[in-house]
Amino acid sequence: MADRDRIASRLQALWEIASGPAGGADRPAFSPAEAEAMLLIAQWADEADLHPGVDRHGNLWALPSDWDGPLLTSGSHVDTVPDGGRYDGALGSVLALEFVDDLKAGGAARGGLLVFAAEEAPRFGAGTIGSRLLTGAMSSDDLHQLTDRDGVTAAAAQADHLGRLRDHLPRIEAPLHRVAAHAEVHVAQRRSLRRLGVVTRVASPRRFELTLTGESGHAGEVAMTDRRDALVAGAEIILAIDAAARAEPAETVATTGAIAVSPGAVSVIPGRTLLGVDVRGTDGRSLDRVETALRSATAEVSERRGVVAEVRQTRAGEPVALDPVLADAALACAERRGIPAEPTWSGAGHDSQHLAARIPTLLLFVPLHGGESHTPDEGADLDEIVQAADVVAATLGTRVSEVPAG
Amino acid sequence: MADRDRIASRLQALWEIASGPAGGADRPAFSPAEAEAMLLIAQWADEADLHPGVDRHGNLWALPSDWDGPLLTSGSHVDTVPDGGRYDGALGSVLALEFVDDLKAGGAARGGLLVFAAEEAPRFGAGTIGSRLLTGAMSSDDLHQLTDRDGVTAAAAQADHLGRLRDHLPRIEAPLHRVAAHAEVHVAQRRSLRRLGVVTRVASPRRFELTLTGESGHAGEVAMTDRRDALVAGAEIILAIDAAARAEPAETVATTGAIAVSPGAVSVIPGRTLLGVDVRGTDGRSLDRVETALRSATAEVSERRGVVAEVRQTRAGEPVALDPVLADAALACAERRGIPAEPTWSGAGHDSQHLAARIPTLLLFVPLHGGESHTPDEGADLDEIVQAADVVAATLGTRVSEVPAG
Repeated sequence: MADRDRIASRLQALWEIASGPAGGADRPAFSPAEAEAMLLIAQWADEADLHPGVDRHGNLWALPSDWDGPLLTSGSHVDTVPDGGRYDGALGSVLALEFVDDLKAGGAARGGLLVFAAEEAPRFGAGTIGSRLLTGAMSSDDLHQLTDRDGVTAAAAQADHLGRLRDHLPRIEAPLHRVAAHAEVHVAQRRSLRRLGVVTRVASPRRFELTLTGESGHAGEVAMTDRRDALVAGAEIILAIDAAARAEPAETVATTGAIAVSPGAVSVIPGRTLLGVDVRGTDGRSLDRVETALRSATAEVSERRGVVAEVRQTRAGEPVALDPVLADAALACAERRGIPAEPTWSGAGHDSQHLAARIPTLLLFVPLHGGESHTPDEGADLDEIVQAADVVAATLGTRVSEVPAG
Repeated sequence: MADRDRIASRLQALWEIASGPAGGADRPAFSPAEAEAMLLIAQWADEADLHPGVDRHGNLWALPSDWDGPLLTSGSHVDTVPDGGRYDGALGSVLALEFVDDLKAGGAARGGLLVFAAEEAPRFGAGTIGSRLLTGAMSSDDLHQLTDRDGVTAAAAQADHLGRLRDHLPRIEAPLHRVAAHAEVHVAQRRSLRRLGVVTRVASPRRFELTLTGESGHAGEVAMTDRRDALVAGAEIILAIDAAARAEPAETVATTGAIAVSPGAVSVIPGRTLLGVDVRGTDGRSLDRVETALRSATAEVSERRGVVAEVRQTRAGEPVALDPVLADAALACAERRGIPAEPTWSGAGHDSQHLAARIPTLLLFVPLHGGESHTPDEGADLDEIVQAADVVAATLGTRVSEVPAG
């Protein structure tokens, strides 16, 4: 049974490590604050008789000392978005230690902890770095292509991160081949989910960068018919993308979240427009249709408006199905305990979706209360957290019998 | 007769004062470089037996010493946009000295020079400051509301400007009541004008700042139907403004030149969008129709998309008619000399439009060659410049007889 007070006090300890200007948690990917949070988790793991260590990607592991057979791991991440919440990442990392205890109490010392590095995207424009490196969805070489706003590459930041942990934790070979199943609890990021969510599919974003090049000119001195206005062209494309997503099932969404025009003065016709577009959903063929609409609208509009368009896909993503056996087991465990739960999907990316390509993986969402996720006011209910923890522990517990004894 | 070589060497001297990164002229409004250019003009005026002085707004005057009756003034400005051209402003300022000489050669010592301060808008987001202050279209108090990107107010910058000139030039009371007519030659900013242009109307921009406030959210976790996307709403409004201007006569134009969204990340639904819109033309009722379309589209789109819209007019502008007698006289002078000329209009703002509210004013455009105006490659033909100078001198010369002898 998960320890309610211990969960609360550990979440508080992580929350206090570093604060942003708005008072939220501030532990950027590969930052000193992320390392400090990992060391705190490692200390708690040590107190629970686990052996902590760091793999070459910067992920934190903590393993039972008296067991070299198959493992049931759990964990999440401890980095945050700027001014992030109390639960995102921290919750799953803290609960992992509860599961280890529960498994041990059940007589099985097969529980381990796996906290992924650099899950949040804001610093480098790319998230789930630790889990993608671990599972091979990303190579170390890719880290040289990612830079933060100060020009620091993810490769250099990762090296700093490993340096910060070096004196405190041993470097270990990631024992991924030993992991028989993995579980992650995460706070929900969709307010409409009001019960414990057992995630069956995770959307993976396809991202596009559109560059529209027209012709700049004096706002007062170029007739409308002579214009090649890159922003007006961009506006048509934004609407076409929005309409294409609205024609699809509700799980499919498309967002133009970033736009920049140059020169960018009120009295100058925009000569260039950059659009950052995110398309995602749980049905790959639905995403294909939105992508086709995006490309054909861009071609048609730019041709008609005399603008040169370049569409660059910056991230290719296919929806991921999580392990149906684990999901069904979790729903059954919840039902047996009288805990309201439902199958659901994730529109946000999570480390679990990458692990799922290699290992049976369970992802549970605790309902979101208070403010939105990724804000200082992000809230969750401690009773529901304990319920989620018990469902995961019970689900992993049933799994123990299926795991060969090494 | 204008002195071709003197014009060229003086334009070169002004050009050499300060250069921007791209090699263009770099004399921002109320900058040391603008003051240096004014002092150079003042020195040339002094050599031509004029008495230079600065009014309290920072405008440079140079007046005949032996005449206290009505004046025929000419001039333009010597500040530039960042990396601006060789001719914009500098040309009209240099030619003013030629007219004074020509008038004197014709026996009339009634020519004066008037170079306006701070004509270009980039530094403070507002242009024609010197001429608006002089004519009362702007008050000194307004200067406290204008700031540059470093937070320096236009009021402080003007004080610095006056301080730079104080040791070299006397402070004078602006003799606006003595000015019987004013003339300005400017390089054209519309490439389609291929002959000498006699400006009959000047468009004055109406500017609007639209703030659209929707709701930010995770790009993967909010269904399309639940969104209040401030950028998608903005895109619809941009297209409505563009369409409204296209339905009007060719002189009416509308431009959304600036856009900013927040948070502005590819994975986040835009919660707020700011649009900077410029509407202008030579027909006030046509502008009224575009403004009505802008306001009604904003209201309709924001209502439908669940966005709160605020439309703030940051600048109110009505088209200005320049003096028809002077314009006709200039066209007649050109015709007598066999110089190709045509009546035209200006989409860009000029100091002359403000002076025209108080004094009969002539504005001539020399055709644009080479690169666009407001760029380092801005070009003009010296033969056409001399032709324009001769037309202005002749037009002002005919005016001498109409000016009372004081």
